[in-house]
Amino acid sequence: MAKMMQTVDGNTAAAHVAYALSDAAAIYPITPSSPVGEICDEWAANGRENIFGQPVLIRQMQSEAGAAAAVHGSLAAGALTSSFTASQGLLLMIPNMYKMSGELLPGVLHVTARAIAAHALSIFGDHQDVMAVRQTGFGMLASASVQEVMDLSLVTHLASIESSVPFVHFFDGFRTSHEIQKIEMIDYADMAALVNMDAVAKFRARGVNPERPELRGTAQNPDIYFQGREAANPYYLKVPGVVAHYMQKVAELTGRHYRLFDYVGASDAEHIVVAMGSSCETIEEVVHHLTAKGQKVGLVKVRLYRPFSPEHLVDILPETARTLTVLDRTKEPGALGDPLYLDVCVGLMEQGRNIKVLNGRYGLGSKEFNPSMVKAVYDNMTGAGKNHFTVGIADDVTHTSLEVETGLDVSLEGTVQCKFWGLGADGTVGANKSAIKIIGDNTDMYAQAYFAYDSKKSGGVTISHLRFGKSLIQSTYLIDTADYIACHNPAYVHIYDVLEGIKSGGTFMLNSPWTVEEMQTRLPAAMRRTIAKKKLKFFNIDAVKIAGAVGLGGRINMIMQTAFFKASGVLPVGQALELLKKEIKKMFGRKGDKIVQMNVDAVDRTLDHLVAVDYPESWAGVSDDAPAPVEVPAWVTEVMQPILAQKGDRLPVSVFTPDGLFPVGTTQYE
Amino acid sequence: MAKMMQTVDGNTAAAHVAYALSDAAAIYPITPSSPVGEICDEWAANGRENIFGQPVLIRQMQSEAGAAAAVHGSLAAGALTSSFTASQGLLLMIPNMYKMSGELLPGVLHVTARAIAAHALSIFGDHQDVMAVRQTGFGMLASASVQEVMDLSLVTHLASIESSVPFVHFFDGFRTSHEIQKIEMIDYADMAALVNMDAVAKFRARGVNPERPELRGTAQNPDIYFQGREAANPYYLKVPGVVAHYMQKVAELTGRHYRLFDYVGASDAEHIVVAMGSSCETIEEVVHHLTAKGQKVGLVKVRLYRPFSPEHLVDILPETARTLTVLDRTKEPGALGDPLYLDVCVGLMEQGRNIKVLNGRYGLGSKEFNPSMVKAVYDNMTGAGKNHFTVGIADDVTHTSLEVETGLDVSLEGTVQCKFWGLGADGTVGANKSAIKIIGDNTDMYAQAYFAYDSKKSGGVTISHLRFGKSLIQSTYLIDTADYIACHNPAYVHIYDVLEGIKSGGTFMLNSPWTVEEMQTRLPAAMRRTIAKKKLKFFNIDAVKIAGAVGLGGRINMIMQTAFFKASGVLPVGQALELLKKEIKKMFGRKGDKIVQMNVDAVDRTLDHLVAVDYPESWAGVSDDAPAPVEVPAWVTEVMQPILAQKGDRLPVSVFTPDGLFPVGTTQYE
Repeated sequence: MAKMMQTVDGNTAAAHVAYALSDAAAIYPITPSSPVGEICDEWAANGRENIFGQPVLIRQMQSEAGAAAAVHGSLAAGALTSSFTASQGLLLMIPNMYKMSGELLPGVLHVTARAIAAHALSIFGDHQDVMAVRQTGFGMLASASVQEVMDLSLVTHLASIESSVPFVHFFDGFRTSHEIQKIEMIDYADMAALVNMDAVAKFRARGVNPERPELRGTAQNPDIYFQGREAANPYYLKVPGVVAHYMQKVAELTGRHYRLFDYVGASDAEHIVVAMGSSCETIEEVVHHLTAKGQKVGLVKVRLYRPFSPEHLVDILPETARTLTVLDRTKEPGALGDPLYLDVCVGLMEQGRNIKVLNGRYGLGSKEFNPSMVKAVYDNMTGAGKNHFTVGIADDVTHTSLEVETGLDVSLEGTVQCKFWGLGADGTVGANKSAIKIIGDNTDMYAQAYFAYDSKKSGGVTISHLRFGKSLIQSTYLIDTADYIACHNPAYVHIYDVLEGIKSGGTFMLNSPWTVEEMQTRLPAAMRRTIAKKKLKFFNIDAVKIAGAVGLGGRINMIMQTAFFKASGVLPVGQALELLKKEIKKMFGRKGDKIVQMNVDAVDRTLDHLVAVDYPESWAGVSDDAPAPVEVPAWVTEVMQPILAQKGDRLPVSVFTPDGLFPVGTTQYE
Repeated sequence: MAKMMQTVDGNTAAAHVAYALSDAAAIYPITPSSPVGEICDEWAANGRENIFGQPVLIRQMQSEAGAAAAVHGSLAAGALTSSFTASQGLLLMIPNMYKMSGELLPGVLHVTARAIAAHALSIFGDHQDVMAVRQTGFGMLASASVQEVMDLSLVTHLASIESSVPFVHFFDGFRTSHEIQKIEMIDYADMAALVNMDAVAKFRARGVNPERPELRGTAQNPDIYFQGREAANPYYLKVPGVVAHYMQKVAELTGRHYRLFDYVGASDAEHIVVAMGSSCETIEEVVHHLTAKGQKVGLVKVRLYRPFSPEHLVDILPETARTLTVLDRTKEPGALGDPLYLDVCVGLMEQGRNIKVLNGRYGLGSKEFNPSMVKAVYDNMTGAGKNHFTVGIADDVTHTSLEVETGLDVSLEGTVQCKFWGLGADGTVGANKSAIKIIGDNTDMYAQAYFAYDSKKSGGVTISHLRFGKSLIQSTYLIDTADYIACHNPAYVHIYDVLEGIKSGGTFMLNSPWTVEEMQTRLPAAMRRTIAKKKLKFFNIDAVKIAGAVGLGGRINMIMQTAFFKASGVLPVGQALELLKKEIKKMFGRKGDKIVQMNVDAVDRTLDHLVAVDYPESWAGVSDDAPAPVEVPAWVTEVMQPILAQKGDRLPVSVFTPDGLFPVGTTQYE
């Protein structure tokens, strides 16, 4: 099979498979799952066909409760039906989920796993939502990367059809749902060949039909309800085998192998982490790094979380395992331990494996989980052996957190890392999405893009993180050592530590109206010092001026993208600009020739106006400007200002009220 | 303190405490919790005051989702607020429960734990609903009897107020919510003396108030959400201590002692059951029975389920424990084990106690759990040691069930057991409720009543189970050896095995228009044989005739109740009828003197018309009537007819479809 590579995000990968294998989808939008439904809806409107030769019937309901009810009803009628949701949306589906599993209806929910609103709302990723449905009788499969979303979505649908058990397929909100990666797409004809069509026919034949009336959803008394609840046991007992079977089939098709639990690391590992979701990618990077140094460490990736099969877990665990650390991306206040930990402990106990097990919590609400933090988890196993720890925060209240020695860089030789500071809705994110697709789809390089923005979206700061290179990219964390940093808004030089983490000899691209001379006074001393000390290649472009001149108003994104291709050298400039112009035609074609031409003009003018700033070596020695004295409350300096300066990650637990209250009237200090 | 004994059901006990300690309650009715809200609503309408000297503000919302939102909002405004729910109702509260716990708002939900609709709906009791909210950050306390509902409701409210953590207080649907027991009521003044009024004042001061604006329910980004989620840890760490403190306070007040986990049984027990809810009462009966025979067995009753405190668990576990069986009253298809089992296993592991642990499931949808089944659980520990078993059903599909040797009678000497077969809405249940209250409130006997009826309620069969005697009654299962059986509907003698389980020399009370001679032909042979063989005292009363004569139409309940007092001899007849007439005035007073007089007349006439049936000894030898041959489908004979004959408990798993489907058009065979 010729590989069909494409540069897409996790939501698109899920939509690709869900669309293929669904007759219908009942949806209700909720961040970060909304694009899955939107993409399917657009495909359906355009007449795209699923593997059964029909467009998918898409209906948006009044809420996720209605969507779940519609999925239940549609399945009962014999239509393969899916939905896409997260967080509170998934919680609203719970009552209907019991009905679907109770009636053995093979529906699939693709969930972009997300935090739940507690002391505060969070639209970001963790496993609080999926863990809140682990008791509903759904099968649960976890994907750790965009490629896995493609592959394991397919396994999920195939296994659900064959087993008659409904499934949740989940992947981390934003980190995987919105991360763009160059992946191999699976063709619909190849998918169709794997479907158990007998099972599909049997399922359709079970659909309600006035020609063969039957009684569903009875009310049962104490005499028979319990027996009925146990009657489905044989179906659940078969699921692990069915999932393993389809993992094998997908491996034969794609060459990518999966097991219910996958192990990577030293075959004689003593200290092993067990994790689920996107963190597995980062942990695997660290495992490669540590085993290369001779350390006996490993990682178990949990794929099939429900039904939980401890036989399969101990099967892949090295005999040498002495300590396990189970990482949970959820919090259940009052529980003895988080859910994956409980399952692993009891699984080992039942299988007679006497291994010490520790439990750690990480990544709530998309909290960063990077290689330094992973290393702290391994160090804890050989060191203090703290249990029920947190990692990634400083808990100075109940002292759960691990000490993390920052700065571990495990990125692969030849991977280029670029960071772009933009203003929400200024086009930076869109331009970077197009840039990464140009790179991914026109070179043999792997490519990854992730976009960090806060929940106010438009008007807030956006930071785009782009990586590309010859090796597979598994870095599911933000870039902290950058080859290239661009600042698309000159005001940011005073607000943010824009150059944090730039490599020596790296490239800094600034959009500003300032002359080379003005830089002396406009840039803060710390920034000038970094530029000179690290001997950065420093470029300036007055993008606003160019955009104005060609008629684009404030839309500077094509200009900054051109500047990026020129300064980064990722592609020969000529080829890059050719592709960029093709992309412009695709993006703006339906808005008319004039818009296309303005953007093409902007590209052409950029090269002439890009200025290499020849800064003096003396910048290396400048001293800090004295800060202007302002009278502000302690809360503003201690909590609010660090958050605004993008340093909120460093705030310890103690600065937050336990019930989530914040003071008001603080905008005056912004 | 003078003991204030009253004969009430579990819902009334919960209402008594919830009313005392709430400023407001937002409710939505769902079986079996509805009476709690109804009772509180009636009290409020009558101006009854809580401990703060005010009627409780009660508001019914549009659904449980709205009720939960109203509880959240009301708490945020500084009002102590409660709600009452079960099953799907509790599931709809989940999103708001995360908010309440996240914001540390001390709300209390009293839950009549109930099954969840899966392959079929069930209005009956188990722990599927409460187990579906164990991750929400609520504290969870379980009561096992009506007296415990009174005592631990109080502990729950007191602990919630002091800890700022919201709580679910749960007790088994129907078995405890609707069981009537003679219990000690706690006086509102005594409750008030235990409340931490400083904590109440602090809570009220935290309420939203435009005079002190503040920001609640923020949307937090990845930088700070995780820290905020850990900021409440100190509150949760304190909860076990706070609950233990108030258990001690309630013990000082009432003399009834509770711990987070309670142990009963041999101090050198080797085989110990861990359970939660009403099953603890039955298990305790069996433990007393077995330890009296020298067996080394015991029982751990789980009171505080969340936060789960393994230190407190191992504290009360005998050093001699070799095997534990954790009984879960829930099912989570695909889980390695049910939730209490997982907690106990990991708790022991973390505490370094190396004990073999088994897991059993029982009682789904109020499936009967009686002493014979309990004994099977203990026998399994010394015998086969089967894990992940079911008990109470015959699982001939996946062979999970334990063999049960039926007939173990552990009822206490002197406890009288009476069973009444009635027709839904014929007044039998109401009359038995009044009878048990007369006995409980006017003698020094303990009294218990439980009413088994199917979910169609009106028009279906009802079976009332009454026990009374000098000893505390812990039999939380149906009566299977009866001293007295009454059949209020003559048609039942052909449909049901009405006399099943009657003791030799027991009393059988029949309502029929038949003469002594007619009994010969009207009663089926099997019934006549039982009457004669067991030498029953057999009475007949033509209650319909009496009711017609005094103008009561078909309302025979007062007549049957009079007959019961006469034939059972539980009270001197004169006193009993005096009390019954007083009760009649209370019940019908507002309907006018005429109705009162008709009922009094009915009572007076009953004694004259009660006929002791002098049956011939030859009945002992009569042979069965040949059954009329009818052509019916196998499903009707194998499934439907046993269910209709009240023998559904004996149907094995294999006769049920795994997805809950039933055939239609079967009424023709009824």
